[in-house]
Amino acid sequence: MAGRASYETIAAKTTNAINIVFRVDGGDAAVNAVSFAGESLLAVAQRAGIPIDAPCAGSGSCGKCKVWLLSGAETLRSSASRHIGAEEYAAGARLACESFVAGEAEVLVPDASLVLSKRMRVTDLRGQRESAVFAGFRQTLQGLGFAGDSGLEWREVRLNPPTLDDPAADRERLRAAYFSVYPPPVCFEMSLEALAKLPSVLRVSGWHVVCAVRVDETSGKHTIADIAPACPAPSPLVGLAVDIGTTTVSALLVDLLTGEPLAAGSAGNAQLRYGADVINRIIQSTRPGGLARLRTAIREESLAPLIDDMCRTAGITPADIKKVAFAGNTTMTHLALGIPAEYVRLEPYVPAFFRAEGLAGPDIAPCLPRSAEVLAAPCIGSYVGGDITAGVFASMLPKQEQFCLFIDLGTNGELVFGGAEFLLACACSAGPAFEGGDISCGMRAADGAIESCRLDADTLELEISVMGEEGTKPAGICGSGLIDLIAELFRCGVINAKGKIIRSGLRIRRDDAGVGSFVAVFAPDTESGADIALTEVDIDNFIRAKGSIFSAVRTLLAVAGCEPGDLAAVYVAGGIGSGIGIANAISIGMLPNLPEERFHYLGNTSLLGAYAMLTSRAACAEVEAVGAGMTYIELSAHPGYMDEFVAACFLPHTDATLFGPERGVR
Amino acid sequence: MAGRASYETIAAKTTNAINIVFRVDGGDAAVNAVSFAGESLLAVAQRAGIPIDAPCAGSGSCGKCKVWLLSGAETLRSSASRHIGAEEYAAGARLACESFVAGEAEVLVPDASLVLSKRMRVTDLRGQRESAVFAGFRQTLQGLGFAGDSGLEWREVRLNPPTLDDPAADRERLRAAYFSVYPPPVCFEMSLEALAKLPSVLRVSGWHVVCAVRVDETSGKHTIADIAPACPAPSPLVGLAVDIGTTTVSALLVDLLTGEPLAAGSAGNAQLRYGADVINRIIQSTRPGGLARLRTAIREESLAPLIDDMCRTAGITPADIKKVAFAGNTTMTHLALGIPAEYVRLEPYVPAFFRAEGLAGPDIAPCLPRSAEVLAAPCIGSYVGGDITAGVFASMLPKQEQFCLFIDLGTNGELVFGGAEFLLACACSAGPAFEGGDISCGMRAADGAIESCRLDADTLELEISVMGEEGTKPAGICGSGLIDLIAELFRCGVINAKGKIIRSGLRIRRDDAGVGSFVAVFAPDTESGADIALTEVDIDNFIRAKGSIFSAVRTLLAVAGCEPGDLAAVYVAGGIGSGIGIANAISIGMLPNLPEERFHYLGNTSLLGAYAMLTSRAACAEVEAVGAGMTYIELSAHPGYMDEFVAACFLPHTDATLFGPERGVR
Repeated sequence: MAGRASYETIAAKTTNAINIVFRVDGGDAAVNAVSFAGESLLAVAQRAGIPIDAPCAGSGSCGKCKVWLLSGAETLRSSASRHIGAEEYAAGARLACESFVAGEAEVLVPDASLVLSKRMRVTDLRGQRESAVFAGFRQTLQGLGFAGDSGLEWREVRLNPPTLDDPAADRERLRAAYFSVYPPPVCFEMSLEALAKLPSVLRVSGWHVVCAVRVDETSGKHTIADIAPACPAPSPLVGLAVDIGTTTVSALLVDLLTGEPLAAGSAGNAQLRYGADVINRIIQSTRPGGLARLRTAIREESLAPLIDDMCRTAGITPADIKKVAFAGNTTMTHLALGIPAEYVRLEPYVPAFFRAEGLAGPDIAPCLPRSAEVLAAPCIGSYVGGDITAGVFASMLPKQEQFCLFIDLGTNGELVFGGAEFLLACACSAGPAFEGGDISCGMRAADGAIESCRLDADTLELEISVMGEEGTKPAGICGSGLIDLIAELFRCGVINAKGKIIRSGLRIRRDDAGVGSFVAVFAPDTESGADIALTEVDIDNFIRAKGSIFSAVRTLLAVAGCEPGDLAAVYVAGGIGSGIGIANAISIGMLPNLPEERFHYLGNTSLLGAYAMLTSRAACAEVEAVGAGMTYIELSAHPGYMDEFVAACFLPHTDATLFGPERGVR
Repeated sequence: MAGRASYETIAAKTTNAINIVFRVDGGDAAVNAVSFAGESLLAVAQRAGIPIDAPCAGSGSCGKCKVWLLSGAETLRSSASRHIGAEEYAAGARLACESFVAGEAEVLVPDASLVLSKRMRVTDLRGQRESAVFAGFRQTLQGLGFAGDSGLEWREVRLNPPTLDDPAADRERLRAAYFSVYPPPVCFEMSLEALAKLPSVLRVSGWHVVCAVRVDETSGKHTIADIAPACPAPSPLVGLAVDIGTTTVSALLVDLLTGEPLAAGSAGNAQLRYGADVINRIIQSTRPGGLARLRTAIREESLAPLIDDMCRTAGITPADIKKVAFAGNTTMTHLALGIPAEYVRLEPYVPAFFRAEGLAGPDIAPCLPRSAEVLAAPCIGSYVGGDITAGVFASMLPKQEQFCLFIDLGTNGELVFGGAEFLLACACSAGPAFEGGDISCGMRAADGAIESCRLDADTLELEISVMGEEGTKPAGICGSGLIDLIAELFRCGVINAKGKIIRSGLRIRRDDAGVGSFVAVFAPDTESGADIALTEVDIDNFIRAKGSIFSAVRTLLAVAGCEPGDLAAVYVAGGIGSGIGIANAISIGMLPNLPEERFHYLGNTSLLGAYAMLTSRAACAEVEAVGAGMTYIELSAHPGYMDEFVAACFLPHTDATLFGPERGVR
């Protein structure tokens, strides 16, 4: 804020300053932003704190930063774009990244162009039935002894009140009473936060208290993280599990003693306005002040409000959180902690760290207390991070005697092959297609997303299923919906093996350049009032994404001398929807051609793994072991990978025998 | 700031708001403050961030908050005061605490009425000769093995650069290289601050670095607190020793490897505007938001700018500070850490803690790094704190075979009696007289203070010595000057045993109420242009202060069945000037009647003790041992103490035989 304020002050004093008024759809007030001639509207808006979505980092390729000129159209030098039709352009539609200030203007930012619009979702889970996946996971953890040892517990202590003859300080009095139950060589420590509460809690409780004790078996240190009166019974000991995704941040508030979830929440990663993928984020982080900006975005704009909201929902405050476990890919882990990630993307691809220890609450979010211990899932390579070590643990793949495959479909795709004997990991740059990026009508798995569909081969009528309450109008297509739609278009002969549209009809259009598109939902039935249409460019982007996954599977298995048919199970993870149509994913050549029952959709395994680390120190040690036992394979350095990729960029594949009827053979 | 801003906003919208303009002497801009009818000018000024001095917390007793009305005299309801003469009052002088808003006004705040005016003093000590006291202390420490083991050192590490075949992360690469020199079971940890520097330092240095390592022998933990290229030689490892006094904060920046001081600094404790003594501070801290206000005052207004300035002087930044040791009385230690101190002053006088552990840089000042370890000298009672445990260690009293006495003359007086066999400690509420408080012409030991004087019995001419450069005009009298002046007035028969003025002359005046005063320096020769005069009220305050010290000495010694004559040495500590005239202090009955050579003036022993803790872990353990071995005597609970005090409130004492010519007998 200080930086911005001073910039504005300087600018306001400069006669060259040009005022741009932003009106945010649904917002109350106009935002006056000072700019200079030649600046892009996107840059001006971002400086003014308006979170316009720009997953392509302002390169003009994604088309997400659409705004409407209310006045001053003549003063903005902007060009038509393949994302803005001639009619829309005439009506004032512009891409913010392709419009440059030349004079004063007033601009409407539609809700749909905002990064965080409607993105935060928090659910009260107290007293709710757990989802089948989560309940099953908890049962598995319990069965394997990975539950109920968070390392924190409430311990009751009774003290004698002080007198003139016994005027020991409160802390030393508590320490003596604690030692009478847990004698030395226990090492007694007390957090400043607990110490600050101590005098009043002791006196209010009549010298009968409970201490939230964190026991470190290795050092013998017992840390009093919190203190409360013994009566009435103290509130739960609460922990926070977080998955820091490139696109979405997901979290669970958890009762550490019972393992029960209290609230679930998710929000967009506010770093999105600095680029959709880790490479763009890293580039942005190396600019002056960039690392701090990216860290602020995740800590203060995404995590802090999400944690606040989740705590409010669960009836606690962030200061009550005693422990945090988080998992993220290598770049997200670096940026969240403010550690430079620039060498992650430069040969020989070396991160600053795999493991970080000694972390405390404020390292992750300013609202968290210093006394909260923070655990980070370990990374093992530049593109295989904590989300994968935590996720592979959650999949229980390392417990399998037969060969299995773990696939995490995120902004990046990561694969782990092996079982109890070995673990091979690799990453492929699938791009953000599965999360709605790089797709003109794409969106993340949220309310309004088309999550599955079925096409009638004769009429080309499309039956869709939309996320959200009954009657929610479709706003776009998320990953699982895309897989279905492209599989259906291919099955019905609308597109050919190269993804080109080869039929015609009401739903099929071509623009001036001859680029075809398929209208999934017509304007009157959509949320935005514009068609939801998939273009050949979108299909091309998607085919490359699915091709990169399939070729990575083949290459990784080949390294171990195996073939897809050797796989006893395939665990699919990722937040691409409520699940994916496995048959469809196979039919387009994204997943290997195996019997459907060998596939298991696990959802967000990164969050599940973080949950396990939070609630069990044994699980934490196991995640560390998974990381230590994993071998990282750099695909790009592997001969044959590029050939595999090119061969996989067809529907379903250039080698059609791979997707014949006889599944599980090759 | 946020609180203030919103208050101002609300006030500005209220039609009842009254504008007060403050002009600060020597300041550039006027400060516009919003107020309401009936508010005291002092409260309005303090809310506006103008640090008017108010050691009596606005009770009208100290007379330090004098301001001048520039306009609007008729709109302030204020009364004449014993601190403002009729002539001054007519000219516009007012006490801010006794003036209440009734309409708009413009007010001049003279420099002399500001708390922090000219109070920060920083000296570059690099290449300077150390003071005799400090050099002697360092020699003693060295002789006793209390030097050169700060627990931090630079350690050289060479790494192999990464390749595609060896892409381990930077931290793990460093860890492996470190282990090759310091093998496990060493436990390797790295601070986030060091981790953030790691990628660039490794590459800039050609993979040849030095690590600032903190070794914890108990846990075997080696923490990398910082990292730098091996060539050129790294900058010193810097530590900070701090004495947090009720009135003054003093600090030393120290090269941890050599023990050499790099810079010295002192500043007023900004909490002063909430009251001069610990009792008033505690009362203020219990008001809504009070604890946070007091913590902010010491952390952000006193320590942060002082540390900043000292670092600039020494050519480093606060982020370079690797270790901090601080000592303060029990209340200051509580308030600096934000721990409630309210039970310190309520029977049975129980602080929240004696020892605090696990502290990090930001706990003490926001500019310090998390990786900086912070040590606090242990407290042992409500009124015997870390300044005394550190100070007693520095005096080396616990090494003495014979009985010795340690006296710390601060805002409170603390005494420790004993030696190698036992240590008895007590506190007496001497009040702030020795530091210039409660004395109309009093000031702290700083430039302009009269630090010693001599009176001619016949002419009543006063010869004075003023602190600061040649030609500095006197501005007031500090503790050591007061002792001299009162002793001289008594010796020359100007005042009697009760402190009443019994002579007349040019320098002697009486106000309308008949209260006498002695003019030490006439207006033309003073900095402020007003007389520096000592009133009978001042003398009375001083006599009670010295009486409380002497009676405490007698009572403490009596507890052990001893008399002053048994004392082999008396160590006098405190920042009351460059030293005190021992003969004068004895002649007025402040110190026991012993041969002068048994007295040793040690200066700020709290700071010396903090220095020792900073540079030596052995010294740190010894300070802990001193604290653990000390018995606290509550004087007020001791029968006979009040009688001793009443008897000591004369010059020199009601029992004149105590101060006969035969010294060291009783």
